[in-house]
Amino acid sequence: MRTGVWLVGVRGSVAVTSVVGALALRAGLAEPIGCVTEHPALRGRSPDLPAFGDLVFGGHDVASTPLVKKAETLAASGVLPAQLVASLREDLGAVEDEVRPLPHARTQAETGAAFAADLAGFRHRHALDRVVVINVASTEPAARAHRAHERLDALRMALIEPEPVLPRSSLAAYATFSAGCSFVDFTPSTGPRLPALEELAAERGVPYAGNDGKTGETLLKSVLAPMFAMRHLAVRSWSGYNVLGGGDGATLSDPAANAAKSASKQRVLTETLGYQPEGHSRIEYVPDIGDFKTAWDLITFTGFLGTPMRLEFTWHGCDSALAAPLVVDLARLVSAAHRAGRTGPLAELAFFFKDPLGRAGVEVSHALAEQWRVLCRFAGELGTVDDTAT
Amino acid sequence: MRTGVWLVGVRGSVAVTSVVGALALRAGLAEPIGCVTEHPALRGRSPDLPAFGDLVFGGHDVASTPLVKKAETLAASGVLPAQLVASLREDLGAVEDEVRPLPHARTQAETGAAFAADLAGFRHRHALDRVVVINVASTEPAARAHRAHERLDALRMALIEPEPVLPRSSLAAYATFSAGCSFVDFTPSTGPRLPALEELAAERGVPYAGNDGKTGETLLKSVLAPMFAMRHLAVRSWSGYNVLGGGDGATLSDPAANAAKSASKQRVLTETLGYQPEGHSRIEYVPDIGDFKTAWDLITFTGFLGTPMRLEFTWHGCDSALAAPLVVDLARLVSAAHRAGRTGPLAELAFFFKDPLGRAGVEVSHALAEQWRVLCRFAGELGTVDDTAT
Amino acid sequence: MRTGVWLVGVRGSVAVTSVVGALALRAGLAEPIGCVTEHPALRGRSPDLPAFGDLVFGGHDVASTPLVKKAETLAASGVLPAQLVASLREDLGAVEDEVRPLPHARTQAETGAAFAADLAGFRHRHALDRVVVINVASTEPAARAHRAHERLDALRMALIEPEPVLPRSSLAAYATFSAGCSFVDFTPSTGPRLPALEELAAERGVPYAGNDGKTGETLLKSVLAPMFAMRHLAVRSWSGYNVLGGGDGATLSDPAANAAKSASKQRVLTETLGYQPEGHSRIEYVPDIGDFKTAWDLITFTGFLGTPMRLEFTWHGCDSALAAPLVVDLARLVSAAHRAGRTGPLAELAFFFKDPLGRAGVEVSHALAEQWRVLCRFAGELGTVDDTAT
Amino acid sequence: MRTGVWLVGVRGSVAVTSVVGALALRAGLAEPIGCVTEHPALRGRSPDLPAFGDLVFGGHDVASTPLVKKAETLAASGVLPAQLVASLREDLGAVEDEVRPLPHARTQAETGAAFAADLAGFRHRHALDRVVVINVASTEPAARAHRAHERLDALRMALIEPEPVLPRSSLAAYATFSAGCSFVDFTPSTGPRLPALEELAAERGVPYAGNDGKTGETLLKSVLAPMFAMRHLAVRSWSGYNVLGGGDGATLSDPAANAAKSASKQRVLTETLGYQPEGHSRIEYVPDIGDFKTAWDLITFTGFLGTPMRLEFTWHGCDSALAAPLVVDLARLVSAAHRAGRTGPLAELAFFFKDPLGRAGVEVSHALAEQWRVLCRFAGELGTVDDTAT
Repeated sequence: MRTGVWLVGVRGSVAVTSVVGALALRAGLAEPIGCVTEHPALRGRSPDLPAFGDLVFGGHDVASTPLVKKAETLAASGVLPAQLVASLREDLGAVEDEVRPLPHARTQAETGAAFAADLAGFRHRHALDRVVVINVASTEPAARAHRAHERLDALRMALIEPEPVLPRSSLAAYATFSAGCSFVDFTPSTGPRLPALEELAAERGVPYAGNDGKTGETLLKSVLAPMFAMRHLAVRSWSGYNVLGGGDGATLSDPAANAAKSASKQRVLTETLGYQPEGHSRIEYVPDIGDFKTAWDLITFTGFLGTPMRLEFTWHGCDSALAAPLVVDLARLVSAAHRAGRTGPLAELAFFFKDPLGRAGVEVSHALAEQWRVLCRFAGELGTVDDTAT
Repeated sequence: MRTGVWLVGVRGSVAVTSVVGALALRAGLAEPIGCVTEHPALRGRSPDLPAFGDLVFGGHDVASTPLVKKAETLAASGVLPAQLVASLREDLGAVEDEVRPLPHARTQAETGAAFAADLAGFRHRHALDRVVVINVASTEPAARAHRAHERLDALRMALIEPEPVLPRSSLAAYATFSAGCSFVDFTPSTGPRLPALEELAAERGVPYAGNDGKTGETLLKSVLAPMFAMRHLAVRSWSGYNVLGGGDGATLSDPAANAAKSASKQRVLTETLGYQPEGHSRIEYVPDIGDFKTAWDLITFTGFLGTPMRLEFTWHGCDSALAAPLVVDLARLVSAAHRAGRTGPLAELAFFFKDPLGRAGVEVSHALAEQWRVLCRFAGELGTVDDTAT
Repeated sequence: MRTGVWLVGVRGSVAVTSVVGALALRAGLAEPIGCVTEHPALRGRSPDLPAFGDLVFGGHDVASTPLVKKAETLAASGVLPAQLVASLREDLGAVEDEVRPLPHARTQAETGAAFAADLAGFRHRHALDRVVVINVASTEPAARAHRAHERLDALRMALIEPEPVLPRSSLAAYATFSAGCSFVDFTPSTGPRLPALEELAAERGVPYAGNDGKTGETLLKSVLAPMFAMRHLAVRSWSGYNVLGGGDGATLSDPAANAAKSASKQRVLTETLGYQPEGHSRIEYVPDIGDFKTAWDLITFTGFLGTPMRLEFTWHGCDSALAAPLVVDLARLVSAAHRAGRTGPLAELAFFFKDPLGRAGVEVSHALAEQWRVLCRFAGELGTVDDTAT
Repeated sequence: MRTGVWLVGVRGSVAVTSVVGALALRAGLAEPIGCVTEHPALRGRSPDLPAFGDLVFGGHDVASTPLVKKAETLAASGVLPAQLVASLREDLGAVEDEVRPLPHARTQAETGAAFAADLAGFRHRHALDRVVVINVASTEPAARAHRAHERLDALRMALIEPEPVLPRSSLAAYATFSAGCSFVDFTPSTGPRLPALEELAAERGVPYAGNDGKTGETLLKSVLAPMFAMRHLAVRSWSGYNVLGGGDGATLSDPAANAAKSASKQRVLTETLGYQPEGHSRIEYVPDIGDFKTAWDLITFTGFLGTPMRLEFTWHGCDSALAAPLVVDLARLVSAAHRAGRTGPLAELAFFFKDPLGRAGVEVSHALAEQWRVLCRFAGELGTVDDTAT
């Protein structure tokens, strides 16, 4: 079950950490720490996930820094072990051969076709059973609504016009679905979340998952908010301050650009508690923090008879090191879901996302433990598929 | 369904906060914040829990400070609203009438009999359907093992000797079971956790629950440790430092006396993670902190490829305000379980305890979300009981 | 040496806490905690500061809530002891008699005259030796520059025009100086910081002090930044997040309005370290925090050979309880300076301010320990004045 | 002015970081971050401190790991830059040539003589003007008192007996003084703090400094406690919890062994505040923390009218990176003091120590800013010495 993993933004920190990690796992040079699909509860249930050795990497990027060089930079800042990068230089070179510049043509229809052609070539060269495209590119500004987003036929008409109608992330999803591949949006960008693209995924019988990988503050919220809820304590305020130095920091610290992300970070509270506490989640860009992120949250709550209490936490995490194993997990799970014949949004993968995709008739929980149960059941069902049929 | 709630240690902070809270709820003067049995998920399932108005309070204590006076002290230190205490002076006086000195006789058999007689009188005076005894007294030093703890007949023989064989908490459980009442141990003391007492509970057909109410640091551990486990992250160390000023602070800061409690505080980690991280949980007694407790925990963990990360939290909570609503919850749930014919250890109430009682054939989870599911199902089953049959 | 203390914004939290505190000290009902002028090092040096019993309070406000009522509100939120407020009802009533609505007339010249007339009446009714006016009103938006701010004669001409030329805080300073009184600006507003007002203070021979009382995060910066500087450690970033619920919270959380304050909060770093680290100081308004303020600061720094390290602190303080004793201190010190013949900006009081006033030829340190030395020397010099001469 | 720096414990983390740092500074490969003697205020005043290029290193150790190997280990754990260690391999080899096993003979007199002979050889081989011996070895258990500690003649008699009378650190000081060299005790061990050794230092005309380098929690206490004192705020409790993984962690986490160190850590509070707040300073050994240390302190204090407030800080520092530049500073300063004819305890170097040595008639402050002023004056006085006279 050879599986292609095509990373949009393949030269970024998350992508390179994912690639290095997957190569290291394949070579037996690392433990699968942080890989959810290697948790005994999942590994046991779904013996047929693609093995690390079955994953083949490639991708698009607008940048041109070689993967090895980027990996060395990450090693210098403590994200990757320098020794490991040195050992994997050759393997990284092989992935480098499958990196293509992000296509850009006169119309979005042509750009999409070029994108799909890159996927087809990749699949062909490596005799892949299927390909998962994963968006780990920079967060886009909020997309402008357009009439053509609502229906697939209208979208197809609009794409041949010179004026672009889709944000990049959605064009990537369009091209991916057109090529019969599955898609994961690990970013808060629009991606496949448009009715026309849902229609296309259904037409082509492909699954997709998203949005916005849950790696830090929101991960904690998804266990702490349920704790307060289960104990019937009244959360009065929840303020978060995220200091980050790398990746999207510069973009996200702009209050306007960040409005969407901040809102999605507080959504877990409203959904879990049933009310909206006071407070906001802020982002501050401080380059010295590097690829790490320090989040400080202050939660004020009241107990019996109104006694005021408080919880503070400081999370000092490396987004790349937290995100990368999830990228590998999602590649394995979405590929297996594709093979098992699942189509459309995979609401069962809510465990991985800040802003999980729903599905008609399926209620998506924001509580991690409930998401975990759903994930385990989902993985178990994938495992029962008869492989000979595919 | 009039239910007696007999508090051992009725003049302590937790007991007085419980009583004031229950009286306030009965009088409609407070919201049931922190009352788990008022969570929609539970309230809906078990409509037959005793109402707040059905609870009648009494108890034992070695101290003699009047309840009203203790309540005023708690109000002065910010644990209770002064206004509320003033409004409830009369109701507190009524509870005061049901407070008795902790019996002490020549032999433990006689002490136990006097204890049971106090319960019988309480039950009779208020025409109670049943009585739940809840131990909220100070933590005892670790009990010395004794042969007579192993079998009920041996225990009965030993109790008539002048030499005491049971720690106080266990004698309270003995007397409670003998009187046909149910028992809750909210402390880390031995309580009903002796084979001879399990035998007695079975003989008398009464249920019991415990041990050690989960109100602060361990509550957080029971959601954070599963989070790390579900994400397959490697927790390297977990160090906790608890600064507390009231209640058991002076006792627990003694390393020897506290060994048992510290061990139980780390148990949730081993059980949930499957391994024992480095680090310890320490207790420091600082009177200025008053009835509040500040816990600081430092968790170091590694992500993909060994990247070191860390989480710190500071919990600033009021133990009495967190414990009291749980005491009321346990009174309601254990009473309903008694009525529903449940006997022996109620492993389904693990949600409430640091060191939950197991039951032959029942695996007890230390993960809060799992404990919550078990609790909801348990409450639902109690609700289906036919009341006319009892 | 009877001293009048006229508070602009007399019905606010800081003012009412100052008044209650000073009355309590006079009545021997409280210890002078937080009163710098009661520190042995100062008390010994300047025996001639006005005694607490010599202070007479009055003030202006646009609000109309009675002082007693405001004090009771502060007691309910834990800022003042309820008992103390009850004991001081009568004394607060006497201060209430000296509260006047903030004057407002057709021209600023007339408004200023009415303001000065209120001061004269206050001084006369209580046979005061001198009066200190202290601005503790809400922070103003940044003032618009005006040509008339530069010279006193131009200002006098402009004030009789219908169009206002001075912000409120500066008009208060103008009226105060015109009435021969000294002035303290405890806020970040413009106040006396205009060349025309400096000219007026010199002409009338009155001293003044400011700006912006140093009560929390900046206080810590003024000892921590020198620590890093003295150890020659390289501070890479300093990010601060201030969550506050009362007072100026709503105003200050507006990024535009707050720009000036945030800049002044970082100034201490640049001045002390000699360079500007990365990072910003943010303000978040969370009403549930009430009259308290929680500030979280993250400082990243490097040691020998570039090793990255970090310091975090959380300050949970009550601004009113920190500011009020300083208001009393400033009343005593500025009054004594006035009596000792000092005029113009009192750069020696930098110890009390975030953004201390300089004085031609005097370098103002931002390091607390240096400010302390200057203050002690200043107080010592005041004490040597021959009282019979004044 | 060639100066020998002889490190007792030369193969430990602090020593190796000091050596690597000094070599890097000499080679122009690093900035003197953390070097107090390079602060403009000191560099300007004392132009005659030995230059980095004038320092020659050697030392004793019981361990045998080569310096280069230890440096590589420190690089792997993020304390030293790997690149730098690689560049300095040759220079480290030269220092390696001057490392000797710690002498051990039949009597302490003989051991001391062998120690002094090593110093003499070192001095001779490198034509050194003078040698400073710096103790950076592991902390000793508290020393047993002995009559011979009181007088030099008694000590000399006792040292020729087979039974040891001096702890190792004091024997090192004895040998150092006997060899006419100056001594610095960077540890909490007894070192030169015995009357007999003070007598010897006077006799030989050599200076010494100590004890216990101030690198983390105590450094913060020495600025925060004065802040509370200057503001006349009442500190109610100060609790500290130090989690450390390297160096003395294993030793110090033993409550008995650590009693002395904990007491010295709280001394700064009593000395600065004038009273002893509640609370203790604890040490926890957690190997995963490595060469870093995380200290969490909780300070509760009250403001005006008793309002309770709190400050928490978390210090995440690398002891070696903080200590090493101070070791270099002390070598320079003590050598210059020796040259300037200073003898006996150098109380003016209190800035560097947790438990600073006093001197008859000199009051030693525990406040960092005051210590800084004393240090600057001291350095200035050293600078005025006429070099041709020595």
